[in-house]
Formats: sequence, structure tokens, C-alpha cells
Amino acid sequence: MNYADNDFLALAAPWVAELTPYVPGKPISELERELGIRNAVKLASNENPLGPGPKALAAMAALANELGRYPDGGGFELRRALAEFHGTSPAAITLGNGSNDVLDLIARTFLQPGVESVYSEFAFAVYPIAIQAVGATARVAPARNYGHDLNAMLALINEQTRVVWIANPNNPTGTWLAAAPLRSFLGAVPKSCLVVIDEAYTEYVNEPDFPDTTHWLETFPNLIVTRTFAKAHGLAALRVGYGISDPRLAELLNRVRQPFNVNALAQAAATAAISDREHVRATVELNRAGMQQVSVGLTALGLEFIPSVGNFVTVDCKRPAAAINEALLQRGIIVRPLANYGLPNHLRISIGLEAENARFLSALAEVCAA
Amino acid sequence: MNYADNDFLALAAPWVAELTPYVPGKPISELERELGIRNAVKLASNENPLGPGPKALAAMAALANELGRYPDGGGFELRRALAEFHGTSPAAITLGNGSNDVLDLIARTFLQPGVESVYSEFAFAVYPIAIQAVGATARVAPARNYGHDLNAMLALINEQTRVVWIANPNNPTGTWLAAAPLRSFLGAVPKSCLVVIDEAYTEYVNEPDFPDTTHWLETFPNLIVTRTFAKAHGLAALRVGYGISDPRLAELLNRVRQPFNVNALAQAAATAAISDREHVRATVELNRAGMQQVSVGLTALGLEFIPSVGNFVTVDCKRPAAAINEALLQRGIIVRPLANYGLPNHLRISIGLEAENARFLSALAEVCAA
Repeated sequence: MNYADNDFLALAAPWVAELTPYVPGKPISELERELGIRNAVKLASNENPLGPGPKALAAMAALANELGRYPDGGGFELRRALAEFHGTSPAAITLGNGSNDVLDLIARTFLQPGVESVYSEFAFAVYPIAIQAVGATARVAPARNYGHDLNAMLALINEQTRVVWIANPNNPTGTWLAAAPLRSFLGAVPKSCLVVIDEAYTEYVNEPDFPDTTHWLETFPNLIVTRTFAKAHGLAALRVGYGISDPRLAELLNRVRQPFNVNALAQAAATAAISDREHVRATVELNRAGMQQVSVGLTALGLEFIPSVGNFVTVDCKRPAAAINEALLQRGIIVRPLANYGLPNHLRISIGLEAENARFLSALAEVCAA
Repeated sequence: MNYADNDFLALAAPWVAELTPYVPGKPISELERELGIRNAVKLASNENPLGPGPKALAAMAALANELGRYPDGGGFELRRALAEFHGTSPAAITLGNGSNDVLDLIARTFLQPGVESVYSEFAFAVYPIAIQAVGATARVAPARNYGHDLNAMLALINEQTRVVWIANPNNPTGTWLAAAPLRSFLGAVPKSCLVVIDEAYTEYVNEPDFPDTTHWLETFPNLIVTRTFAKAHGLAALRVGYGISDPRLAELLNRVRQPFNVNALAQAAATAAISDREHVRATVELNRAGMQQVSVGLTALGLEFIPSVGNFVTVDCKRPAAAINEALLQRGIIVRPLANYGLPNHLRISIGLEAENARFLSALAEVCAA
């Protein structure tokens, strides 16, 4: 080959050239380092302000003498607990290092150069990254009212489409799809196209028409539902998510999965967390109250926001949000700018503790008045 | 497309059909479940019988109130600590969910269908899996005395070769390469071919000619060295490894890396562990004594083994080892059969605590006498 020394990009797979990594929320420690402060408030990553529940913490503590041992590569206990929770078989479960890892496994197993994958404008940023990282072709359906337009998505599906991604509710917009249209969509998608429904925020939703699509797996064998422990279960630091699917699909995903992708503390914590309904209940109740608090506060400031069923709300600043974001950072408040989602006027705010929400609203009032 | 319902394999990338997942060591809990026992000894996964050191444990405990937060996606503190340890820049470091993840990132970044990758017979089983998982072509060099034959590897490298994998020391055979021949090899490899030197067991080696190839990175910009916290640092449960390379290579690997691939407890533990020289010293000393104990015991039983510089030793049973392995399992001893490495007569035994080594030797004596 005609190789110029150290032109490493020329050695990489061609799609790596176009690959832009996911931009994580700024860690609190980083902002505090930069500003020399100690009490920053982070409302940027849709984390659970309560953290893990007591059962998860106890399960981690019980593992203290086992930390020199590899995790169980098969995830026996966790898959059994998840299967019991969902009324399915452990063979239907694919464990991931966060649901990000499950999304990545789906892309690595079913996408390749020459095939296509469909997602929606304003949908979770990991979908385009997962598609690009394996060199497949992305088709982006325009959104409707900031949410998924299922007809527009359907129109993009063809014989080359292997995977369609749907976030329900969607992050970062907080929009959601009701059972009936989603079920119709699944009925219309060709069986040769897998449908991934990413239910990372499902526990927060309190809408009668909101579907639990894990109940649809027998009807639609091309469906893969993903869930996470990072949100309502409060285990973002630990990295655990999972897919539920036809066991034949799970078997293929597990071929690509690294054997020890979920660490032992994460497995233990998640195994305990899945049955801790009280912690999820308290989390959801805190979020409901906080969403009310933030919504009222935003309205009082004359700001519009996208109605959200998640643990976050996206505000339309009606002008470039970068300066507002910067002014909030200067006041020790970390929220999420959405320019990389094509929403340069919007900021996404995670719902925090009451005092955190209040500090955010107060800082925002200052910034708006300035 | 001509698609038979639920023929999911037909939807997968073609190389998935040939993908055989890594077979992890049997977890203690699984054997104890099967046998109804409670005191099984696991010498199957080259784990550190001391587990983590006190500094790592303290760092994890200090994170108790942060478990609801995402990890630092950039790994600021850990990369800084590693850079300091190695006398390099944080930009040279790529963090992985175990070094397995780094190996996978290298394959995903630089391999694709149509390019080739070279490794040695009897080398670590993750190399062929990483190559196969991205559809590249594997070229396997025959081993010499159970170790890497660098000339045979060189003979397989051509214009299509993007990555060569070398384990030094090698797992599962415990063989090692001295500085001079390895350096000559690096000088002979075309610059368009990356060389991965996997130093997972480097801390255990006490040979004057054994190289620390992290010192060679400036001379050979196509070199990537990988290290792990799962062995001498005793953090196998946590999953942390890293690559060190030219920062331009690291930048490409970090494009493919999932942003939160290393969990927060793992980052904190590793940041503390890298400077805990006393724990590594105690680990290496325990291993030296245990290796002596096991070597003497094996010799007394008339068994041959491959001389090893790692924390494990591979025994030649001179007959199919599956039955011996089964008989050991019945006695509550888990070691590693190596049939999947093309070594059906061999068993790999990790060096454990003195009492564990003694239980293994005693059980093996029983089995050999039976």
C-alpha cells in the first residue's frame, strides 16, 4: 500500500474518519476544577438524584471479598432476576455495559457497510454513532413536534434496512409514542428489519396509553427492547443495561458481546435493584414533584419547554442557548446544550432534588434578567 | 430480500455466523450450585488471590455517594495517573472495560473485511474473536516451543496486514519474548501495520531481558501496548485496562470507544491502584512462592509443565485432559482446560494462595492415582 508514515487515519476503517464521539455531560469535578468552586449542581445527564437504593448498596457491599475475581461472564443471577421480573426466559436477555453497549452490540451484529439503519431526528445521539462505527448507512426521518414521526420512519425502510431505532420516551425531547400507533408501526415494518425500542426512561412515564413493549415480543420476533439501570434505578456510575428479545436474536448479540462486559459490582447491584420497587417508586415521585416545580418555574420566567414524560425537560430559549449555558456554568449549574442534536436554541435540564431545581431556576432567572 | 421468517442469522453480518464467543472460566458460584458444595477453589482465570489492595478499596468506598452519577467519560483522573506512572501524556492513553475492550477497540478501528491480522498459535483467545467480530481475515503463525515464533509471524505480514497481536508474556502458555528479538521484530514490521503488545502479566515477570515496551513508543509509532488491572492489581471484578500509544492512534481508538465504558468505581479503584506498589510487590512475592510450590508438586507427581513467567502454569497431562479436569471439578477444584486453544492434553492452573495450591495438588494426586 501507498502509506505515508504515521497517517494512522489511512490505516483505519474508512468510516472512522467520519466518526464523532458522543459528548458526555460535563462532570461536576471538571466544572469545580475549572471554576474553583465546590458546590456545583449537575442537571445535565438525566441521573437519579437519589442514587442507588439500599438493596443495591447492600448487594455491592456483600461483594467486597470477591473483587479480585472476574465477573460471571454469563450473568447467571442477573439474567435470572431480569427474566423473573419480565416473565420471560434468561435466554431472552442480553446484558450490556449500560444500554449503550446493547445498542452497540445490535449495530455490530446486524449492521455493516452496504446496509441501512433508520432513526429519527432529535433521537438519542448514540444511534447515529453506533451506525457510523460499523460503516452502515444512516437514514434520518424528520421529527414531528420534536418526536418520532412513525410514518416518516416507515417511508425510509427498504430491503436494505436492518435496524430501526426508537426511543420511547425520547431523549432529549421527552416526547413519547402511544401503544396503538407504535403497534401499528411494528405490524408494518418488514420482518427482515429489526426494531429497537429503547425504554431507558420507561419507569418515569405515567400515561395510560404508554406501552410496555416487552409484552409484545412474542407477537413481533424482530423486536428488541432495551432497558437501563442508569436512570430510575440510580446506578449510572455502575453501567448496566440489557436487551430483551427473541432468544435467537439474543444468542447472536451474545456472540459479539465481550464476556466480562458488565462488572461484578454492577451485576450484583442490578440484581438487587430490579426488585426494589420502593426505590423506583420514591424516585418517580421525587421526579413528578420536581418536574412540577421546574415547569412552574420555567413558565414563570416566560420560557417554553417541550412537554416531557421523562426525568428531564427541554427548554426553548428562542435564541442561541450557548451563551445561557455558559452563564449557568459560571453560576455552578451544569445543564445540557443540544446544538449537537440540531437544537441550538434548546437546553435540556434534568430534574434534580428540590434544592437543586431551585438553584437552577434562580440562576436561570438571573441569567434571563441580565 | 429473500427472507425466511426469523432466520435472524441471515440478517446478521456474515462473519457473525463463524463467531464463537470466548469461554470464561467457570465461576465458583456455578460449580458450588452444581455440586452443592461451599468451599470450591478456583484456579482458572489467573486472578489475584489477594484481591484489590487497600488503596483501591478506600477509593471505591469514597465514591459511595456518587453512584447515581455517570462516570467521567473522559477518564480525567485515571488517565492522568496512568500518564504520570508511565511518564507519558494522558492523550496517549485509551481506557478500556478491561484490556479486552481495548483489544476490541483496536480491531473495530483498524480491521474490516478485506484486511488481515496476524497472531500466534496458542496466543490469547480474544485476538481471533476480535478479528472475527469485525469480519477481517486472521492469519495464524505456528508457535515455537509453545511461544511466539516472531519469524513465522513476520512471514505472514503483507500489505493487507493492519494489526499484529503479541502477548508478552503469553497466556495460556506462560512463555515470553526477550527485548532484543522483539525489538528486531518491531523494526522489521512495515509501518503500515500496527503491533499490539499485550502486557497483561508484565508485573509478574522477573527476567533481566524482559522488555517494558512502553519505553519503545517513541521509536515505534505503530506500537500499541495494553495493560490491565485485572491481574497484579487484583481488580478483575471491576474491569479496567488501557492502551498506551501514539496520541494520534489513541484519538482514533477513542472515537470508537463508548463514552462510559469504564465504570466509576473501576476508574477510582484503578487510579488508586496504579501507585500502590506495595500491593503489587506482595502479589508478585506470593506468586513467586506459589509458583515454586506448584512446580515442585507437579514434578513430584511426574507431570511436565511449560515454564511460565506469569501467575499460572500449563501442565501437559500427556493424555486428554478433559477427564482429569472433570475429576478435579468433582473435588471442587476449578482449573482451565485448553482444548479450545488446540491443547487438548493441557490444563492451565492459576497460582493461588498456599492453601489453595495445596488443595489443588492434593486433588490432582488423587486423580492421577485413580
